[in-house]
Formats: sequence, structure tokens, C-alpha cells
Amino acid sequence: MKRELKRSFIREILEHTNSDTISFAGGLPDEKLFPHKALQDAAHKALSSPQSLQYSTSTGYAPLKEQIAQFYNAKGFPTSSQNIIITSGSQQALDIISRLHSGKGITIEKPSYLGALNIFILNNMNTTSFDILSDEVDMSSLESSLEQNPLVYLIPDYQNPTGVSYSTNTRREIAILCKKYNTILIEDAPYSEIYFGTPMTSISSIIPNQSFHLGSFSKTLAPALRIGWIRAEDSMLQPLISYKEATDLHTSTITQKIVSYYLNDPSEFENHKAKLRARYHDKMLYFAKMLTEHLPQFTFTLPKGGMFIYGSLTGTDTMQLIKESMNQGVVFVPGMEFGGKYDEIRFNYTHSTHAEIEQGLLRIASALSTLKSQGL
Amino acid sequence: MKRELKRSFIREILEHTNSDTISFAGGLPDEKLFPHKALQDAAHKALSSPQSLQYSTSTGYAPLKEQIAQFYNAKGFPTSSQNIIITSGSQQALDIISRLHSGKGITIEKPSYLGALNIFILNNMNTTSFDILSDEVDMSSLESSLEQNPLVYLIPDYQNPTGVSYSTNTRREIAILCKKYNTILIEDAPYSEIYFGTPMTSISSIIPNQSFHLGSFSKTLAPALRIGWIRAEDSMLQPLISYKEATDLHTSTITQKIVSYYLNDPSEFENHKAKLRARYHDKMLYFAKMLTEHLPQFTFTLPKGGMFIYGSLTGTDTMQLIKESMNQGVVFVPGMEFGGKYDEIRFNYTHSTHAEIEQGLLRIASALSTLKSQGL
Repeated sequence: MKRELKRSFIREILEHTNSDTISFAGGLPDEKLFPHKALQDAAHKALSSPQSLQYSTSTGYAPLKEQIAQFYNAKGFPTSSQNIIITSGSQQALDIISRLHSGKGITIEKPSYLGALNIFILNNMNTTSFDILSDEVDMSSLESSLEQNPLVYLIPDYQNPTGVSYSTNTRREIAILCKKYNTILIEDAPYSEIYFGTPMTSISSIIPNQSFHLGSFSKTLAPALRIGWIRAEDSMLQPLISYKEATDLHTSTITQKIVSYYLNDPSEFENHKAKLRARYHDKMLYFAKMLTEHLPQFTFTLPKGGMFIYGSLTGTDTMQLIKESMNQGVVFVPGMEFGGKYDEIRFNYTHSTHAEIEQGLLRIASALSTLKSQGL
Repeated sequence: MKRELKRSFIREILEHTNSDTISFAGGLPDEKLFPHKALQDAAHKALSSPQSLQYSTSTGYAPLKEQIAQFYNAKGFPTSSQNIIITSGSQQALDIISRLHSGKGITIEKPSYLGALNIFILNNMNTTSFDILSDEVDMSSLESSLEQNPLVYLIPDYQNPTGVSYSTNTRREIAILCKKYNTILIEDAPYSEIYFGTPMTSISSIIPNQSFHLGSFSKTLAPALRIGWIRAEDSMLQPLISYKEATDLHTSTITQKIVSYYLNDPSEFENHKAKLRARYHDKMLYFAKMLTEHLPQFTFTLPKGGMFIYGSLTGTDTMQLIKESMNQGVVFVPGMEFGGKYDEIRFNYTHSTHAEIEQGLLRIASALSTLKSQGL
């Protein structure tokens, strides 16, 4: 029997809010920080030859694969372009891996990324979850789940939705457990480059022979490019190629070349990422300050990177709150949408200006008062 | 049990041939005919606002959906932008429709497009085929297959691989049969605009309430854009949106906007298509002439549009021939790859120059001689 696929609450919200709504819902980068002129220049170069418009290979544009491989090498994770497949966003990366492993059991975080949960449903995978706690992982429930399932899906860097970053110790322990149970790790890492302190080492680099590491330019460059990738050993990538091909033949060569030309000046990308980290860190701190001021009931831990603050409005049904908040012109995502608790909320802090952050939180505080006055 | 997914022979060839190889294999447009400058200008406009780089809606960029809807209206097929979903090439269109209908039976042409066959395998669909004859459709085997299966997949315009175009009568009869058996039609129409005589009416327009019409800019503008679409009634499109979203969130807004800006000058696109038709018609006639001259054993019917000449080298195992031909620096696709007969061949005529067409066919003639001399 088919299980029902749920549309993303966030994406439905994106389609229905108007321009006056303040949104803390989507995982949207700040478009004012897009390296817009540099990408426009790269596009001009990318389209300077008619050959750029032709069909291309399913595994991706070779120079871009090489550039991505170099990112891994720079981090001490030996990688060649043979270890890379370009995908149409890391969403597609997760989908083709899941299609290859359809019907199998998979361990997931609770709460986790809704887009991943939908993919697992779509591919008839049975999920078993372990809890992400306020700032750590429930290792014993993780281990009992790994015993059961051949696959595990993790977002160790500034997890979506919780913002939790796995400690070095936790990473090492998980790698050991994956080895023990021969588990294939799918490590989703779209936020890895958005760190506010020191970057973390991927779990994949400890167990390269049994891991898929998923990357994306959506958070560091621009989502509209739809460029992601999979890093894995060649023997693990080979079976994926026919799935990539069946799915969309290949990712747009135009957008692949735009990224590749952009990356030709490595200092440009490094400077851009440094600026992103500084600006998002600043926004996160401001969001936290405003939460403390205007929504003091909300309890949370400061994230060490990424795009989200996650926490709890103890005792408040946040599904009720989102409805009233929408009326008052502000949106967020209730934790329930990700498999979290009924009183939890995920806030995105990267997309809004300081003024919007304050105004949006005031509106939520007002919506909360309305609910309380209705006795809800 | 999982059936094995076969990688596309054509795409494997694309990855392994070198620049000296003459290829009649892929369904490649002629890159010298790409409207290259106009697309470069459109890209500049598309990227002139940072907002173009942000996440977007899953169903596609609204102005582009509207422009595509207008193409249908101009042909007398009433369509609004609500009837359109943009996909990452029409390959993805076929994939998400098949995922929604996974496990069901589907009637297909024999031979048919390999990329479709792979999708049906991937989605556990049981295929029943009917024969495409030299210039027509075997209606009685088609009807007995429609009786069994809830879905049918057809490429009525200049079919891939055979080049056959369904007659007006055949289209009408098929529409009647689909109504009789309540069959959902998936009409794949990537070549519809590449006609050499008069354009044909889609079967979908006769049965709009039970059809998906699939279009693409890959053959008319450029494959690297990876922009296709589905036209269907709103109630049939709605269930597809969550599949589109799970698969890759949305198609690149950059490439969607490039197409949309390009289409803002409608006469530009019309003139471009007129030029394509004239040039491809000329290439087809030249290919046919050279076949008659250098490979007189090859029997075929002139196609009325599209990109392929299909026919038979009676008694020759074309799987053997392709191996020897590759040695001699020329490639094509044996009919067997599409479910055709062992002595059939599909030639693409759009990608090569006149000189390459003659040279390539001479090399095949030489490869054929080599085979004969070996008694194969």
C-alpha cells in the first residue's frame, strides 16, 4: 500500500504568503548576500560558447567535479573527480541514493528534514528514529536503530531543524558504530560551510568506504542554481549513475558552468563564505536577543552555525500558533512538521532584516497573547 | 525483486567517443543552430536581479508557465498556466508521472525511447507493447494492450526511434480507444515542433481530461537548459506536485528565466523554429541521399519530421556492426537497444555536417564489408 506523500509545509507557505508576510519559515539565504554580479559575469562566460547549450554527461561537468574534489582535499579528505556526481540540488542526491536502496530500513534523526522524510516514504523505506536532544544525540537509541537498519541518514552540521552540531566525540562514536554494524551513512551537509566557530570534520571522512557525503551550493552561492553533489567511493557511485540518468538525464550544464567559472577565482568564494558567516552570525545573535526580549517563554540553545534557531514554547500548541501568526503576518515552522514536539518551533534567521526580525517576533508575541486570551 | 536498470547505450557512447568519432547516435541538436547570442542576452536579463537566485515554487516560474500555456492556446488547445508544471527536462516529467502511477501496467510502442523504458522499470511498471510498423501503428495489438493497462505511453510525432508520425485517423482512433477503456495517455512530444510538412494535432487535445502532454525546449532551444513541462488538467497535475518537490524541490529558476526572457520576443522563437525545420529537413534529405548511395542495402521510410531515420540492414546483426563501426570511427544506435529488431538501426541526422554524414556512412559501409569478409 502506498503511504501518502505530504507536501512541504514550508513550500506551501512559500506559495501562499504575500509580500507583507514576514517569514521565518523557509531555509532561505539572504538574497542581499548573493554574489550576484560575480555570478552574472560567470553566466556570461558560461554561455560564450554554443557547446555549453548541448546535452552533457550524466555524472556532471568534469571541471566542476574537479573543483569540488579539491574542496575535500583541502580539508584532508582525499577525493578525486571520480568520487563526485553532480546532482540537481542535494535533494536529488538524496532521492537517487534512496531509489537505489528502496525498500530498505533507514535510521533517521528525530526531528529531521521534511524533504528527506518525504523521499524515504516515496521510496518505501522504513524509518526508525533516534532523538536529537537539546545539544546532543541520544547514542543508545541511535545504536539500537543502527542494529536494525542497513542505512542511516544524518545532518551532523547545524542540523535541520534543530541547529544541533554533533561533537567530535559523537562523530567518532557514530563512525565506529557504522563500522560495527556495516551501516551505510548518508551524511547531508548543506550547512557545513556556515559555521560560526571552527568547521567540523565530516563523519564520512572517517568511514569513506561506507558513506555518501552530500553537498550543495544552495546555501553558499544560490539555491536557484540547483547544484548539489554526492561524494563517495567510485564503486558506490557507479550504481547511482543509471538512476541519475533515468531521473533527468543530467543537471543543467549552464548552471554547472556558472558555478565552475565562479569558482575559478578561489579567493572570491572564500571571501564570500567568510562574509556569509559573519553576517549570519550577526543575524543569529540578534534573533536570539529579540527572542529573549519579546518571546521570553521560548527556550533554546544558540546554534554554532547554519540557518536555524530551534526551541520550545513550553505548553503552547505551535500548530495553533502558526494559524494565528499567519493572520498577523508572520510565519515559522512548527516542530511537529519535522517530527518534533507539539510545542516546538523552528525559526530561520538568515533571510530577514533586523527590523523584520523584531517586527516578526512582536507579531508572534501578539498572536500568542490572542491564543492565551482564547484559552488555547 | 528489482529489475536491473540499463544505462543508456547512447549516453555511454557519448561518454566514450572521442572528438574524431562521427556520431549518428545521440538525439543531439546541431549546436551551430542554437540561438546562442539571444540566450546569452536572456541570461544577462535573467540574472539582473538577486531575487532570481533564490528558492522558488515547485510548479515553476509563473511567467514561463503562462508563455507555455499560450503555445497551446495558439494551437486551439485551451490551456491556462494552472495546467502547466515545469520540469527538469521532459525526462523528469515522465519520471514523476510514473512515480505517481508506480506498479501499474502501461502500454508502450515497440520500439520506443530507452529513457522511458528505464523509467518504467525503475517504477515497477509492467509494460505491454504494440508494434510500430514501417509507417503506421498496429491498431489491433494496441487495442488489446489498452484493455489490459490503465496507462499508455506514446510519442506520436516523429517517434523516437522510428521517426513514424501517427496519421490524423490513427490519432482519432487512439483517442476513442482511450475513452472506451478509460486509459490515461502520456503523450511525449519533444519533436512536435520539428515538422517538415504540416504540424499534427496532439491526441491529448482530443482527450484533455485523461492525458498528460509532455513538452520540452531541448530540441527547439537547447538541451543544456533542462527545461520541460507537463500539460494536464489541474486535478491531474495536483498529485504530481509533491513528487516534483520531493525529487528536486524545483527546476533552476535561472534557466527558467533564460527561456522566459528569450520567449518575450515571440517572432524570435518562431523564426528560429522555422530555420531549424528548414535546416533539419535539408540534412534529412541529404542523409537519405547518402544512404541510398553508400549503404544501398539499408531500407527505410523518409520521416516527416524529428531527428531520426530508422530502418533495416536486412540480415545484418547491427550489434556486431556497431562494434566494428566504433573501431572505424563512427557510431549509431542498433534497433535492439530500443526493443527493435536485430538488423535495425537508428540514425540521427541533425547533429552532423554534410561532410560528416557522407564520411560516416562510408565508414559504416566499410565496417559492413569487414563484417562480411569475416563471414558474420
